[in-house]
Amino acid sequence: FNKEALARIMLMENLNLTAGIKELSVTKTGALRIDWTNDHQSHYEAEWLKQRAFTEEAKHKRHSTYRLPKRQWSSDHKIAKLDYSFVLEKDEGLLQLLIELEITGAVLLQNTPSDPTAAFNICNKVAKVKYTHYGELSNVIVVPNPNNVAFTGAALNLHNDIVQYHDMPGMIFLHMIKQHTGEGGETTLSDGLYAAEQMREIHPELFHLLTTTPVYFWDIGEADPADNTRVKDFYKISKEPTIKLDISGAVTHIRFNNQIRDSFLDLAVDQVDDFYKALKTYFELIHANSIGFKMTDGDMTVVDNVRCQHGRTGFTGPSSPRHLVTTYLAWDEALCKRRRLQQKCSRNQ
Amino acid sequence: FNKEALARIMLMENLNLTAGIKELSVTKTGALRIDWTNDHQSHYEAEWLKQRAFTEEAKHKRHSTYRLPKRQWSSDHKIAKLDYSFVLEKDEGLLQLLIELEITGAVLLQNTPSDPTAAFNICNKVAKVKYTHYGELSNVIVVPNPNNVAFTGAALNLHNDIVQYHDMPGMIFLHMIKQHTGEGGETTLSDGLYAAEQMREIHPELFHLLTTTPVYFWDIGEADPADNTRVKDFYKISKEPTIKLDISGAVTHIRFNNQIRDSFLDLAVDQVDDFYKALKTYFELIHANSIGFKMTDGDMTVVDNVRCQHGRTGFTGPSSPRHLVTTYLAWDEALCKRRRLQQKCSRNQ
Repeated sequence: FNKEALARIMLMENLNLTAGIKELSVTKTGALRIDWTNDHQSHYEAEWLKQRAFTEEAKHKRHSTYRLPKRQWSSDHKIAKLDYSFVLEKDEGLLQLLIELEITGAVLLQNTPSDPTAAFNICNKVAKVKYTHYGELSNVIVVPNPNNVAFTGAALNLHNDIVQYHDMPGMIFLHMIKQHTGEGGETTLSDGLYAAEQMREIHPELFHLLTTTPVYFWDIGEADPADNTRVKDFYKISKEPTIKLDISGAVTHIRFNNQIRDSFLDLAVDQVDDFYKALKTYFELIHANSIGFKMTDGDMTVVDNVRCQHGRTGFTGPSSPRHLVTTYLAWDEALCKRRRLQQKCSRNQ
Repeated sequence: FNKEALARIMLMENLNLTAGIKELSVTKTGALRIDWTNDHQSHYEAEWLKQRAFTEEAKHKRHSTYRLPKRQWSSDHKIAKLDYSFVLEKDEGLLQLLIELEITGAVLLQNTPSDPTAAFNICNKVAKVKYTHYGELSNVIVVPNPNNVAFTGAALNLHNDIVQYHDMPGMIFLHMIKQHTGEGGETTLSDGLYAAEQMREIHPELFHLLTTTPVYFWDIGEADPADNTRVKDFYKISKEPTIKLDISGAVTHIRFNNQIRDSFLDLAVDQVDDFYKALKTYFELIHANSIGFKMTDGDMTVVDNVRCQHGRTGFTGPSSPRHLVTTYLAWDEALCKRRRLQQKCSRNQ
């Protein structure tokens, strides 16, 4: 083991799986010394061994450094609110944002400046934004009578973003620079994990279908040639189940996005009806358990994008433009920063 | 469906799963027209329907756009060689690199300029480098008598890189700016997919262990405060099996890195021996089936990092510094570019 690089340097070919213990002793400093039958010698400090014990307690401690426990919610949930400057300027603020996102999957930041880089600046405190072919941040400008269909005022069903990537962005920042002043344009949010667990309990066969049926998502197109922040042309395809489980059966990623679900179905024809029934049942659960609120100028909704779905109601009121900026961040970087800030903030206490 | 955004706009609540067909007819242009019992009307062009038929042929066609078939290899493999300028400057060159990486997982680029951004410049033709806390590119400088242990001349066992991330970099670019002039420092490469399939066949119980045993990897540290290209401090932990399978049982990610495998084991104590036996058996397979070659100045080895392992032999010869640059790219972006270049190059033929 190399103490400066904190990395194991013994080569695997030299790992002896059958060496036995020749002698056990305790050193002057209280460490355990083992003389092995192959003449190798090891020293283990007591604290080091205790931390790595094969007890539930030691395992739980490691796991809680790795990941905080998630708290599920339904339509009576009140989203946590934090002040933008507190998050941007104070370690405690950024830590609160990251912990809340890990536990509940959604936070509302308030009093955000109208600069389109406001979310980008928070991401930069963590590591760097998660890059997609849409660039580092994306302006979504909606007018009630658009000449570009990408910016229509249609309702958007609850969905996860960028599901056409295998490496989906872990978090999405939805920064409302200028809200639509008429009716509609409300943000909807749902805890897709809660809906998945409901489905596992109430409709186990349909849940099984969503965890085992591969779904293609696709995204093909060209960016405005004058826009140097985006990739000029793209053709993304992903193929993953709607609900992805890890080896222990826990939900790790939810990919629900009816807007960009591919029209190619990699199913036998007699599986199609059941697959659509499963998709629609899941949608009904996330819809029934969702919360809704209208963001005002300077609000920024931050969402765990591999867990929660977001959407918006359609615009029905009189004409006024709406300007939203979306920015993404990866969970690997956010978890890393949470662990570092926890160390730092507990040292400062 | 919105033809400009190429996205489905029908809301899920309006999806009627029980509507039947009232009338089938063929339009003047040859499209199929369906009048549904709920008064909805659909038009389907014949070509569109044919592409989406539930036949093996139609499914295969979609799948081969999504992913090219992989060709496994062992110790008699000759790595494909391409000229750096051809890849950087010509669409056909970049397409050849991406196709070869998808099929065999390894390419050697030759005549690369000594600029540390040489790999970065190729990645920028695709999309953007895959960001990690090590920055956008990383200089690895090895001297035989180092004052910094990160730069020792020790042998490195075959490994996948950045396994402490859940979103591992899909590809690694290893650019040899200045090779060590003495003995040693040979690059080793192995097709981890071939070894995994060998293991599935010969040692099914050990293969099962590697696909179902969670392994923690960790990386904690601080960057040089003067280096603004890296994250100042980091604390990454991932928890994934060594060999990750998709829902069809195909290998999607291999995480083998004995250097940064965590010393915490999330196992019952009576599972530990078998787990180490499985790890060591897999190592012996990748080691036995590996190829080795010494990169010369201007060589750049590009590797599918979620499939193949790379390593190097130790430095045993007289003193001389070695300068390698590593850069990463994501598979989502590379597959996207391969599809676009295939369209473009077939149009130009």
